[in-house]
Amino acid sequence: MSQFPISALEKPIAFSRRLFLGSSLAAAVLPSVAKADEAAPSSAATGLAPRLIPARELPVPKTVSPELQAVIGAPYPLGWNDVPQDSTGWKDLAFKSAASVANSITAIRDHFSLKVEQTTMAGVPVFVITPEEIAPNNRDRLLVHIHGGGYVLFPGEAGAGEGMMMAGYGKFRVVSIDYRMAPDFPFPAALDDVTAVWRVLLASYEPSKMGIFGTSAGGALTLSTILRAKSEGLPLPGAIAPASPCADLTWSGDSVMANAYVDNALVSRSGWVGAAAALYAGTHDLTDPELSPLFGDFSGFPPAILTSGTRDLILSDTVRTHRKLRQARVNAVLQIFEGESHAQFLTPFVPETQESFGEIAHFFDAHLAS
Amino acid sequence: MSQFPISALEKPIAFSRRLFLGSSLAAAVLPSVAKADEAAPSSAATGLAPRLIPARELPVPKTVSPELQAVIGAPYPLGWNDVPQDSTGWKDLAFKSAASVANSITAIRDHFSLKVEQTTMAGVPVFVITPEEIAPNNRDRLLVHIHGGGYVLFPGEAGAGEGMMMAGYGKFRVVSIDYRMAPDFPFPAALDDVTAVWRVLLASYEPSKMGIFGTSAGGALTLSTILRAKSEGLPLPGAIAPASPCADLTWSGDSVMANAYVDNALVSRSGWVGAAAALYAGTHDLTDPELSPLFGDFSGFPPAILTSGTRDLILSDTVRTHRKLRQARVNAVLQIFEGESHAQFLTPFVPETQESFGEIAHFFDAHLAS
Repeated sequence: MSQFPISALEKPIAFSRRLFLGSSLAAAVLPSVAKADEAAPSSAATGLAPRLIPARELPVPKTVSPELQAVIGAPYPLGWNDVPQDSTGWKDLAFKSAASVANSITAIRDHFSLKVEQTTMAGVPVFVITPEEIAPNNRDRLLVHIHGGGYVLFPGEAGAGEGMMMAGYGKFRVVSIDYRMAPDFPFPAALDDVTAVWRVLLASYEPSKMGIFGTSAGGALTLSTILRAKSEGLPLPGAIAPASPCADLTWSGDSVMANAYVDNALVSRSGWVGAAAALYAGTHDLTDPELSPLFGDFSGFPPAILTSGTRDLILSDTVRTHRKLRQARVNAVLQIFEGESHAQFLTPFVPETQESFGEIAHFFDAHLAS
Repeated sequence: MSQFPISALEKPIAFSRRLFLGSSLAAAVLPSVAKADEAAPSSAATGLAPRLIPARELPVPKTVSPELQAVIGAPYPLGWNDVPQDSTGWKDLAFKSAASVANSITAIRDHFSLKVEQTTMAGVPVFVITPEEIAPNNRDRLLVHIHGGGYVLFPGEAGAGEGMMMAGYGKFRVVSIDYRMAPDFPFPAALDDVTAVWRVLLASYEPSKMGIFGTSAGGALTLSTILRAKSEGLPLPGAIAPASPCADLTWSGDSVMANAYVDNALVSRSGWVGAAAALYAGTHDLTDPELSPLFGDFSGFPPAILTSGTRDLILSDTVRTHRKLRQARVNAVLQIFEGESHAQFLTPFVPETQESFGEIAHFFDAHLAS
């Protein structure tokens, strides 16, 4: 049994034992403890004591590709918790976010030899992405892409990278929506723009031959677009792929605390992402399903594939969305990637990224009419 | 933006910033840090520095039923890290484990008005569990249950509770196998027993009308039984449900460290569970697929449904098994429950338990011949 080095964990064990005698005693002897977020709906109100988790070293797992190991081993993003204090600051952050991915966007476009055309639909700027070869099944199909970035980041072509990868890996035609964002255009501008584009596309494509997908804020918008379409009586797409949706802006999911500082993409809701979501929501009720689709009615939703990673700060949003879809008897499937933090299944040119896009493309192929 | 209390997390933020300057400096200023397990294949060998996660309070989430909140809020199990030092100690732990669930077993049997008969098949003791009503589709079907408990715990009827709940919730006839266990009967005794029972059942049931399921060690045995059946040319069942399988006894999964001390069922591999797995494995190569089925060839596997929770110490084993099944083009689906630690989807009389069994029963109904 020598391969189980109990001694290395002696201190936390001693600490955890104190929990049996009362966690307040334990808290008194441990410095540097992140307090449970008192404003989060998940805390305190249950009347049950929080668990004290000791500090620890989290190694980079060998159970993923070397390329992904480098992503998992990277430090927290510089500036992850530099929260802009005014509109100028937010716009500066958006500009920097776009600049930071510009090289990747070019590399993706070139790698797949994509044609990317900018145009507008109902006045909303979009990118029409055409792969070198469209799969025979996909000739009459179209995928609609809604990018992420906390409703603030990745304006312009910077937001279209995920759409480009789907076009490339899946051999689909994709329309990526460059919707209006905060701070100038808070909720519901983004949803209004996506819905307006959806209406335009319905004039040219069979809804059953279209899918909608996106990650993070784009995953939430994918879900809220279905809620909006239901309420407006619009036809629904044949399938959707909301990936790691920010589906609950009250941040009540368990992983928001469990994966805080484990996730090296968002890191913690105390960083820019929490502030960005608040900026988008403004004074609206955070439980409004068009803001937090997890609080909506999922009955009648099209088949859905959900994607997240085990270290994702909002893994809980993904698994709760999956459960709620299943409770509504929707054909919903889940894929969770080992060791990945928020949205890292989008990292270009990593084997696991090809796998996640492959699964989503396969799902669309299985569920869209052709 | 006042609902995002950045100040509460100031200390960890300051700490994480130090990471940019080098984690060894950060380690020097933080006490009570659990060292990365140097013997785990996941550590160090990547050549990338581990992440230092600050200590924190993890609240009980409000996003689950009140019944499950009580489970999530419970302290670590008493004795979770009291590792027996000899055979007598292990047998005493097994006896105590059986005693600890005796009342639950009675309650489950009574709640569902189950008939539970003890018999033997190929000399292996089994419990034949018959619900009050067998669903019409299930008249010619049989589910085979393999219990968990680290290949050491829950001997006798104590192991049959999961089988009883499946019989009750799913209205299936179930055979639960009371296989031989360590310390007296290490690997491969358990697998030999399950395979022997499978051979007996093949004489009476169509394989396509049978399913195999189990949790933890029982999930691993579900997978390794398929590997063994493949290698021996035996017919395979119509579907399987390996839940939170201990599929990797090298403990290389990322969650083994990421969810250490977050999981309040197993808590850490440094507790009894790691020692139990080592006791079962003995001197065998831990990467032998019959011990660690994650290292096996999943091609040709029957449709599979996998279950775990976001706080599960071996969540990584479940998601990696799912990914590897999908890579082998197996029809494999995943369900992950919010906030649940290892095997907590088995907690009797919790709403989420009915949901997890309902999904598994639905999956068997969809994939078994009738």
